[in-house]
Amino acid sequence: MALLSILTPVLAAILCLVIGFMMVKSQQSEAPTTAEGKTKGASKTPVRPWVDQDLQDDSEITTGGGDDNDWDDSNEEEDLAHVPYSPPRYLEEKMLQRSKDFYTLMNQRRTVRFISPEPVPREVIDNVILTAGTAPSGAHTEPWTFVVVSDLDMKHQIRLIVEEEEEMNYRQRMGDKWVTDLAKLRTNWIKEYLDVAPYLILIFKQTYGMVPNSKKKTHYYNEISVSISCGILLAALQNVGLVTVTSTPLNCGPQLRHLLKRPVNEKLLMLLPVGYPATDATVPDLKRKRLDDIMVKI
Amino acid sequence: MALLSILTPVLAAILCLVIGFMMVKSQQSEAPTTAEGKTKGASKTPVRPWVDQDLQDDSEITTGGGDDNDWDDSNEEEDLAHVPYSPPRYLEEKMLQRSKDFYTLMNQRRTVRFISPEPVPREVIDNVILTAGTAPSGAHTEPWTFVVVSDLDMKHQIRLIVEEEEEMNYRQRMGDKWVTDLAKLRTNWIKEYLDVAPYLILIFKQTYGMVPNSKKKTHYYNEISVSISCGILLAALQNVGLVTVTSTPLNCGPQLRHLLKRPVNEKLLMLLPVGYPATDATVPDLKRKRLDDIMVKI
Repeated sequence: MALLSILTPVLAAILCLVIGFMMVKSQQSEAPTTAEGKTKGASKTPVRPWVDQDLQDDSEITTGGGDDNDWDDSNEEEDLAHVPYSPPRYLEEKMLQRSKDFYTLMNQRRTVRFISPEPVPREVIDNVILTAGTAPSGAHTEPWTFVVVSDLDMKHQIRLIVEEEEEMNYRQRMGDKWVTDLAKLRTNWIKEYLDVAPYLILIFKQTYGMVPNSKKKTHYYNEISVSISCGILLAALQNVGLVTVTSTPLNCGPQLRHLLKRPVNEKLLMLLPVGYPATDATVPDLKRKRLDDIMVKI
Repeated sequence: MALLSILTPVLAAILCLVIGFMMVKSQQSEAPTTAEGKTKGASKTPVRPWVDQDLQDDSEITTGGGDDNDWDDSNEEEDLAHVPYSPPRYLEEKMLQRSKDFYTLMNQRRTVRFISPEPVPREVIDNVILTAGTAPSGAHTEPWTFVVVSDLDMKHQIRLIVEEEEEMNYRQRMGDKWVTDLAKLRTNWIKEYLDVAPYLILIFKQTYGMVPNSKKKTHYYNEISVSISCGILLAALQNVGLVTVTSTPLNCGPQLRHLLKRPVNEKLLMLLPVGYPATDATVPDLKRKRLDDIMVKI
């Protein structure tokens, strides 16, 4: 009791300091630095012991940004001239057929770990990246960078970094309830496809940009924007018959960013090995939810 | 100095307590409740004064989850039988043409606020939602719920909630550096299309699920997964000639969740009004970055 009565007021004082510290930091929007793990606030570190720092969307920590609710109609574009917009319009039968065909195509998409080393036409990859770049983004900031790696040595260095982190993650989590068999796990941290796939696409989110006056310009909703862009990228890959493994490498974002010489405002969001499926490729026989399980009509 | 020398060990002790407390909480995955604003930790509240609580991806706050780096190859599916996978393979010329055609289609997509009230075939919307449901997700949790609203009264109630919050957001942020003209802003918080569009699609992320033993099952990377699903949904809409406004309503997630009677584990991520573009629709004359500005070759 005596000890507690001493601790209580001190605890209050320290929490106030921490709160003040965090508020100042977030207002200076130094959050990206925080995510880099360079200057971690005492109140942040313990909260996220395992999560990949690069998966925190720091932009949302800053104030403002609510003005961008309609993403591509941000204040910054209200000064732009408006032009007529009349996209192709399809008859209802045609519309229905197109909706069925696209569903059939996308429903064939699967995460495939068995990727063929066969070369893939570079121009196809360029078009896939261009397509991903058509995604909407908060205030039309287009906060994405797609690093396409085909260099054998670089792919191997990426594999080593990812596998080292993966093995650590698994070993550190051996106590976890759903981690039971080390032999089984081992197969999980070996990523042969990172060497084999003709292309590795590393997708970075730009948590902030630089404006002429060299001030930081926060990219609101950058993580959601880049994830939406990834969805369009996955559709573009499926459309040309290529496969990938949707992965978010845990904790190795900073190392990979340094390896690929990306600036500090960019955080790794996804790593996609891309290629044709191997001729003997297999996938787990999983099912998808039915329409009634994912849609509610009102 | 004396004071410091007394505080230092105490600070260490208190931080340990905080760490333990947070880890226990996160293991019980009570984070979603936190996001609801019911039990805010002192270390969280001040950090995010403005952000929509529903945009926090609480799953990443919990421990574990690193095992899901390869999303659809999570431990939970390792017991599933593997089946051969051989999707259609296209000749290089065909591949290249398909990649160009899909880019052309997606590059025509624009955020359109002028939506026609004309009815849209229900079955087309169903297929679009089905297509969005083919997205990959952490541990194949498929953590999405698509609420499709066509009821006139419900659409209007949604509009009232969104506009009220929008107006508050703008007024409260009048001091903001890039908020200069109230008259101009006013046009931003009027969302007529929420009444006019034949369908409103509200996309919820399920931050956790329930397993048979009625324990909470954390949905890792649920925000990224649902955002990717949104990207595929936008592609599916564009493919049938429908338009939308990509929006993330600030701060009204909880109100809309209650209005739509969604469970507490679901958080609103996006609100998409969907329909044909109005015949006199216009869009800001904005440009997209060039390939060299978004892609890096290594």
